[in-house]
Amino acid sequence: MARKLIIIGGVAGGASAAARARRLSEDAEIIIFERDRFISFANCGLPYHIGGEIKEREALLVQTPESMNARFNLDIRIQTEILAIDPVNKSVLARELNSGREYHESYDDLILSPGARPFVPPIPGIPNDKTFTLRNIPDMDRIIRTIQTDAPKSAIVIGGGFIGVEMAEALVQQNIETSLIELSNQIMAPVDPEMAVPLHEELRRHGVRLMLGQSVESIDTQDNGLHLTLQNGNTLTTDMLILAIGVKPDTTLAGSAGLQIGPRGGILVNDRMETPVPHIYAVGDAIEVKDFISQEPALVPLAGPANRQGRIAADNIFGRQSLYGNTQGTAICKVFNYAVAATGSNEKALRRRGARYEKIYVHGADHASYYPGAKNITFKLLFDPESGRILGAQAVGEKGVDKRIDIMATMIRAGMTVFDMEEAELCYAPPFGSAKDVINQAGFVASNVIRGDHLICQPGELTNGAEDMLILDVRNADEVSACGEIEHAVNIPLPALRRSLDQLPKDRTILVYCAVGLRGYVAYRMLSQHGFKVKNLTGGYRSYQMFKNIGR
Amino acid sequence: MARKLIIIGGVAGGASAAARARRLSEDAEIIIFERDRFISFANCGLPYHIGGEIKEREALLVQTPESMNARFNLDIRIQTEILAIDPVNKSVLARELNSGREYHESYDDLILSPGARPFVPPIPGIPNDKTFTLRNIPDMDRIIRTIQTDAPKSAIVIGGGFIGVEMAEALVQQNIETSLIELSNQIMAPVDPEMAVPLHEELRRHGVRLMLGQSVESIDTQDNGLHLTLQNGNTLTTDMLILAIGVKPDTTLAGSAGLQIGPRGGILVNDRMETPVPHIYAVGDAIEVKDFISQEPALVPLAGPANRQGRIAADNIFGRQSLYGNTQGTAICKVFNYAVAATGSNEKALRRRGARYEKIYVHGADHASYYPGAKNITFKLLFDPESGRILGAQAVGEKGVDKRIDIMATMIRAGMTVFDMEEAELCYAPPFGSAKDVINQAGFVASNVIRGDHLICQPGELTNGAEDMLILDVRNADEVSACGEIEHAVNIPLPALRRSLDQLPKDRTILVYCAVGLRGYVAYRMLSQHGFKVKNLTGGYRSYQMFKNIGR
Ligand SMILES: Cc1cc2nc3c(=O)[nH]c(=O)nc-3n(C[C@H](O)[C@H](O)[C@H](O)COP(=O)(O)OP(=O)(O)OC[C@H]3O[C@@H](n4cnc5c(N)ncnc54)[C@H](O)[C@@H]3O)c2cc1C
Ligand SMILES: Cc1cc2nc3c(=O)[nH]c(=O)nc-3n(C[C@H](O)[C@H](O)[C@H](O)COP(=O)(O)OP(=O)(O)OC[C@H]3O[C@@H](n4cnc5c(N)ncnc54)[C@H](O)[C@@H]3O)c2cc1C
Ligand SMILES: CC(C)(COP(=O)(O)OP(=O)(O)OC[C@H]1O[C@@H](n2cnc3c(N)ncnc32)[C@H](O)[C@@H]1OP(=O)(O)O)[C@@H](O)C(=O)NCCC(=O)NCCS
Ligand SMILES: CC(C)(COP(=O)(O)OP(=O)(O)OC[C@H]1O[C@@H](n2cnc3c(N)ncnc32)[C@H](O)[C@@H]1OP(=O)(O)O)[C@@H](O)C(=O)NCCC(=O)NCCS
Repeated sequence: MARKLIIIGGVAGGASAAARARRLSEDAEIIIFERDRFISFANCGLPYHIGGEIKEREALLVQTPESMNARFNLDIRIQTEILAIDPVNKSVLARELNSGREYHESYDDLILSPGARPFVPPIPGIPNDKTFTLRNIPDMDRIIRTIQTDAPKSAIVIGGGFIGVEMAEALVQQNIETSLIELSNQIMAPVDPEMAVPLHEELRRHGVRLMLGQSVESIDTQDNGLHLTLQNGNTLTTDMLILAIGVKPDTTLAGSAGLQIGPRGGILVNDRMETPVPHIYAVGDAIEVKDFISQEPALVPLAGPANRQGRIAADNIFGRQSLYGNTQGTAICKVFNYAVAATGSNEKALRRRGARYEKIYVHGADHASYYPGAKNITFKLLFDPESGRILGAQAVGEKGVDKRIDIMATMIRAGMTVFDMEEAELCYAPPFGSAKDVINQAGFVASNVIRGDHLICQPGELTNGAEDMLILDVRNADEVSACGEIEHAVNIPLPALRRSLDQLPKDRTILVYCAVGLRGYVAYRMLSQHGFKVKNLTGGYRSYQMFKNIGR
Repeated sequence: MARKLIIIGGVAGGASAAARARRLSEDAEIIIFERDRFISFANCGLPYHIGGEIKEREALLVQTPESMNARFNLDIRIQTEILAIDPVNKSVLARELNSGREYHESYDDLILSPGARPFVPPIPGIPNDKTFTLRNIPDMDRIIRTIQTDAPKSAIVIGGGFIGVEMAEALVQQNIETSLIELSNQIMAPVDPEMAVPLHEELRRHGVRLMLGQSVESIDTQDNGLHLTLQNGNTLTTDMLILAIGVKPDTTLAGSAGLQIGPRGGILVNDRMETPVPHIYAVGDAIEVKDFISQEPALVPLAGPANRQGRIAADNIFGRQSLYGNTQGTAICKVFNYAVAATGSNEKALRRRGARYEKIYVHGADHASYYPGAKNITFKLLFDPESGRILGAQAVGEKGVDKRIDIMATMIRAGMTVFDMEEAELCYAPPFGSAKDVINQAGFVASNVIRGDHLICQPGELTNGAEDMLILDVRNADEVSACGEIEHAVNIPLPALRRSLDQLPKDRTILVYCAVGLRGYVAYRMLSQHGFKVKNLTGGYRSYQMFKNIGR
């Protein structure tokens, strides 16, 4: 007999599961319940329609109930909320939101893809009619309507995650004076604090007033706008407020279904996307996944995983053995002209769980620097200092960031090491790459560190002074005067170094640095073979400055 | 005692070897012999300086002898040619090209990186002063000088490989009417003929007169230019001629040294870059490598491999065990607004060696199609039909081609399968990718084929008619009228298909197709489960058209 599949939630995970289910079973009965009026829309495009980059609202509606039904023969019940699940009788309780009518619907199998809800902090003064969150089309419509009717001059975004940053950009594009308040010392939590520094600068370059290490204590609605009081006592006034502090898995239905909630607050599933309750599957933002690197539970509310998990749940329901291979957390965000991306573990996470790791920095051009338009990529690599296994990678830059992190995501997935990065055979012609790509260079550097051919000093160790080391700057004099230098550094440009060896002490460690680390490494090789005790500053002065500016 | 290393050739492989050698050994004596006046220059940038994109000639001189010496303490002897090698006495015979002075120089170890020479076909009428090849700075200077002094109105390029195509583009940018003559039915041999079709169109769109399947019989120098007679009897007149038919490994020195030449005409080395002659290493365009996929000997004259091989040779000379992991042939080329790239084996090569393979096509946007600026990528995937091992990938498009092929190059290197492509967790935000990237989609399609969930028909099988199949076009009517259709096709748009099943025959195979293959696949799933015999045209009408236009 044909199976009856009920899917709760009709967007990324749910719609993908429905489509795949129909492709696997032409005769199954497939019902999608969606609380909202919209299914299968582009959540990820919402900020860009607010900003005006995506001109047509319709472009966001990837499928309408009609088109989706025409293609996949689905019973799509929009504006219908599931209130409860009865796993014993295998049925759900639905309410038509317009009529208020409630009814039961039975299932053979159930897929939950209810997503997540924007986290709304318990700040006195919220809710109010000038404060918004952004999760779906109605949320977006509300924000756009407010911009159009109230013509706000100023806006504040709370939260420097993906959505907060995208919203700040969108508001600036609407010529609204925008501030961004972030509790932590950095925006974009998936990367480490120093990697966020160029992003802070980019936001400010585009007029965003960035307030790090700040939080809002209370909000007061007055005639001339919202008055925010910060924890430090300062007050701010704004015409509108966007809350983008993160999302919480929507586990409303878990209770009635007897589903288990994991330590991170998401629905627990196995690698078949099954909950422990028979015939109930869950996917998407609502679930906890296993982190690919740490094997620990994690929340990774992203569209790619949601889509693939929906497909896997449908596979397993319709008799195909299909396993989810855990989540690396590969993610990217546009920050005006910059992109920031990461995959695998970041340093914060590695440190938190006491993992063994080493790290290096490389700054390299996205394509041959002699070909016009080359832009710098700042690349951070985390790896196991013994095996060389790649643990994580982060990149920031104007171009080619997605490519580098996708390559790293693939390498991590394959269990590759930094030695594989040395060998990576990537596309090279001047407009697209370099004969030795940033990936190769980072592989060389990390491999040299493991082989003991390159002793490095971390810029973070230096920011509080270099103790008794001699700091040797091997940049050219014009670079020193143009960019500044590390305090107490002695400048001997690399081309002059070999003939200046007698000026250097053999009894003190020499910390050598250049702009990005390459010439410092060449100097390191020279000096160490001449019997000096040497370390090279990984990432050079550029990484040093990033550390200096953490949290600013 | 300090070792004495001689390097022949001071550009990609040679300069890299020298730099690495010095980093490994501060006290080695390192001599570079270079016939030319320039070392360490950007060969790959030459066409772009001719075209005017790279404005400054100096930008191509990555290192000068002075800067290279200042950094690495090298004995760089430019304009000095090595005439012979005496492997018994471990010495080379050098000639200073200016003075004509000849002398012997002894070595402990020798690295050959003499590169390749442009292949000059034995066409009567060559050489002449209007015919050029492009390998180095003097070649480039000659071409630029001719353009500046003679102001040629027309130019012909022979050869549609990387350099030929780059030169055609450069000449067009100099407002010279440019023709490109190619013997084969396609340009860009690393990809298969159908994948070159969009490139042929792109060349023509930019005014290049492209002549495929043509060759030049003879050349006659007259007052008003060169008169070319083609094999088909046609004649052409041109003001200048560029020969870009390919390169041959420079094995001039191999004889005197007793080196072995492999079946493809390159110097034979092992994976330590050692020739069978003790203490002689060879790298770069001059050597034969092993193809990563086929394990067969191959010539892959590219800069990335040359650079890495130089590093490996130096490693092994200075006591580090370092092995070259064979060459995949990852390569990319800009063709006006398009990029074309490939990695691994192409179909021609697989067929030639009788390998087992399957192939699929996917056409997908480089980033979310609802975000502005999305461009199509045409992607071809070759894989083992049983294990799913990835054998090769090719891509053509305006954006994101390098990224996709780099991901595939990494997967091939890791020995991954099409099932790993399904799971690939790549960067996604609307400006950078899609929740299901082209890589994922290609993985889905190939995996479905292997699992027997998706029976495909190859567009190449169809171009001579569909025999007794019913051809079913599931595109919308407006697409059919706008783009044309396959002869004798019946059109039932996908949304109407489920209610039109009774119009379809059960006794004939139905070949279904859409624009790119996706809707055709959805129709395939529907029809096959309703008991019809079905196949889906992989890559849809777009791939079909590419096949139709092969060689045009
Ligand atoms: C503004 C924004 C930007 C984003 N940008 C990116 C990005 O760039 N890249 C990226 O990877 N991810 C991005 N995401 C995240 C991505 O959209 C989510 O990870 C993905 O949509 C999760 O899919 P899901 O199916 O789990 O949940 P959703 O797509 O949220 O779908 C859940 C649906 O279930 C419905 N529902 C919930 N409970 C019930 C119920 N009881 N009864 C009926 N219906 C119910 C909800 O109404 C909702 O429509 C973004 C998200 C937002 C909001
Ligand atoms: C126009 C052009 C565009 C290219 N574009 C790309 C590209 O986009 N991507 C890519 O990957 N590759 C590209 N290449 C190929 C790339 O440049 C080569 O693969 C690379 O330079 C090979 O390095 P090599 O050291 O083997 O040879 P080369 O770099 O050619 O160096 C060899 C040197 O040896 C010298 N020499 C030879 N014999 C002697 C002797 N007996 N005595 C003294 N000196 C000698 C020669 O004068 C020469 O300078 C391009 C090449 C050209 C010419
Ligand atoms: C629109 C939506 C329902 C489509 O789901 P879908 O049909 O599974 O996905 P796609 O349209 O990408 O098609 C993928 C399928 O087509 C197949 N396919 C893709 N390209 C193909 C081609 N060229 N030839 C043949 N088949 C192809 C794949 O194999 C896959 O089928 P499978 O899962 O059975 O293997 C779903 O993606 C959705 O709701 N998206 C919007 C919501 C969302 O994701 N939001 C967050 C991101 S903004
Ligand atoms: C210029 C040239 C001599 C440089 O050779 P090189 O010094 O080996 O190469 P790079 O300058 O890229 O430096 C790479 C080295 O720096 C190290 N390095 C790179 N970035 C680093 C960083 N941020 N921190 C520390 N070390 C770094 C690498 O580990 C590597 O050293 P290793 O080989 O000892 O491990 C050589 O590339 C060349 O001649 N190029 C022009 C010719 C050519 O390639 N033409 C074809 C392409 S157009």
